[in-house]
Amino acid sequence: MNRSTSAPAPAPAVIARARALVEPALRAAVNELDDERMRLIARYQLGWCDQHGNPTSSGGKAIRPTLAVLSAQAGGGQPDAGVPAAVAVELVHNFSLLHDDVMDRDLERRHRPTGWAAFGEGQAILAGNAMLTAAAQVLLGDGPAGARALPCLLDATQRLISGQSEDLVFERQAAITLDGVIRMEAGKTGALLSCAASIGALAVGAPAPVVEALASFGLDLGMAFQFVDDVLGITGDPEVTGKSASSDVRAGKRSAPVVAALSAGTEQSRQLAGLLAAGPPQTEEEVALAARLIVDAGGVDWATREADARLSAALAALDAVELPAEARDDLIAMGRFVVNRDY
Amino acid sequence: MNRSTSAPAPAPAVIARARALVEPALRAAVNELDDERMRLIARYQLGWCDQHGNPTSSGGKAIRPTLAVLSAQAGGGQPDAGVPAAVAVELVHNFSLLHDDVMDRDLERRHRPTGWAAFGEGQAILAGNAMLTAAAQVLLGDGPAGARALPCLLDATQRLISGQSEDLVFERQAAITLDGVIRMEAGKTGALLSCAASIGALAVGAPAPVVEALASFGLDLGMAFQFVDDVLGITGDPEVTGKSASSDVRAGKRSAPVVAALSAGTEQSRQLAGLLAAGPPQTEEEVALAARLIVDAGGVDWATREADARLSAALAALDAVELPAEARDDLIAMGRFVVNRDY
Repeated sequence: MNRSTSAPAPAPAVIARARALVEPALRAAVNELDDERMRLIARYQLGWCDQHGNPTSSGGKAIRPTLAVLSAQAGGGQPDAGVPAAVAVELVHNFSLLHDDVMDRDLERRHRPTGWAAFGEGQAILAGNAMLTAAAQVLLGDGPAGARALPCLLDATQRLISGQSEDLVFERQAAITLDGVIRMEAGKTGALLSCAASIGALAVGAPAPVVEALASFGLDLGMAFQFVDDVLGITGDPEVTGKSASSDVRAGKRSAPVVAALSAGTEQSRQLAGLLAAGPPQTEEEVALAARLIVDAGGVDWATREADARLSAALAALDAVELPAEARDDLIAMGRFVVNRDY
Repeated sequence: MNRSTSAPAPAPAVIARARALVEPALRAAVNELDDERMRLIARYQLGWCDQHGNPTSSGGKAIRPTLAVLSAQAGGGQPDAGVPAAVAVELVHNFSLLHDDVMDRDLERRHRPTGWAAFGEGQAILAGNAMLTAAAQVLLGDGPAGARALPCLLDATQRLISGQSEDLVFERQAAITLDGVIRMEAGKTGALLSCAASIGALAVGAPAPVVEALASFGLDLGMAFQFVDDVLGITGDPEVTGKSASSDVRAGKRSAPVVAALSAGTEQSRQLAGLLAAGPPQTEEEVALAARLIVDAGGVDWATREADARLSAALAALDAVELPAEARDDLIAMGRFVVNRDY
């Protein structure tokens, strides 16, 4: 069926379809965990239950598993051929969230206590480890398709780890370059999005140029995604994002737009540097002032332009190869959605 | 060559031979890590360098990689067929040490600051993650042999994680049963030893009964190993163990012999329970008294007898199958060594 003649599905419908396909397999993978505590923390982290195991319904944005399913279609396979890869990518993503929250001492995620805040640091670290290990187990259980996909996932995991490591270094470092932050964000976000967008194609044995184009699409999309996230961390509405207002500013996080603002050489850049020199802003007034200075020094504009440029690059990567029309339409819809979201 | 007619090699020679075979591949795997910090922490954790990267020479006991190499031989392969499995097992072991030290807040290991004490908690967690991920990558890089070995490693990793999770729960729990501690130690130590002893045979495609006998050998050996470790944590010489005298007593750790002592129903059991009720012993006198009460209540005797019984069971498992004579001799030597060591 060539659907490009009819109207493409909007991203939320694409995500809902992928989620319906992936979630049963993701639940089955979590049920396979040896240990009752690990299962509980994994379910909590995935938004399926509260701290006591009572069912809840709220989860993440499911962008990565959706990309993995679309990736299998883009590689010429059926959507369900991308399911084990989607499950594995989502497990790795949540492993990294659980661990990052420990390292960053973040107390809240998606309007709830973070995993370590709810279950203790040690158990949260262990549940992350169990999810990472389970990701590899899921792919190993998928025969030759999984064996083709697993190296991509492990490479992305190493880059994710390196990006987080760099982020921790930056937190203690006085001066950070914009190149440095972009490299770090390429590790923390770009690597796994690139993997998500190409791993399904790998699983179905798509030709190398298709896999490479999808990986390139995913990397640029990941950077666009991150820049949008960074902007939301400065200007986002707490009711919509599930984080406190200006959460990144409050945490003193020097994300790409903040570093762009600091590097802009304007009067506001100097004021911002002075304000942040002593650490994260302390009062509500200081938080608001810092957010305004980042905007006025052009940091948010820079990140918004950069997100648009990365989206264009991502879409251009898709143009370089022949893809099934429906998968291409859905990937394009996902790309636009990621850049235009407000949460 | 059937060497069973000549004198079997003593365990230190077996270990030295395996170490010489495995270490270059282990170094190569660490060199493959993306990130300079991750490489440094991995090298430090493996005992190859100090905090600044200057070469040092001291490492772990190398029991797990030695078993993996012997396992390949026991399965009918050449020793080098067990090298990727040995590297992977040693990486997983060190991943767990790095993380456990964070969770247990241990400050010293092998006469040096632990990884997190030297490099910070976040970086130590990340380096552990990088080592776990690298373990899977090493096996994936080993073709069909690695693909046969990887499920065993991942299963053992899940059991390791569950064991550590249970250990953390026990730390906050007033009453612990001896069965509970033994189950926890089977996860924390038995699972990876069982994997080490069977993974080489899996890699070389040995028949299932051989793999199962080796896994059973490794599990019992692992329990014997752990009980000896527990005894050393009560009575060990700090100069030899690299830990403080009675280090487990000092930390208030309720290892198997401690729980056996508490459960013995003697006058000393009651005194010990009273002493430990308020938490770990505080003064040197209290530490010495607690150690003496554990001995007098029969905890150390229990663990020593249990270690001997587990060694006998391990050796009996080997008797159930045909194995190449040299590999069998070396496995027996390793078994005796593990139980008779003083560090």
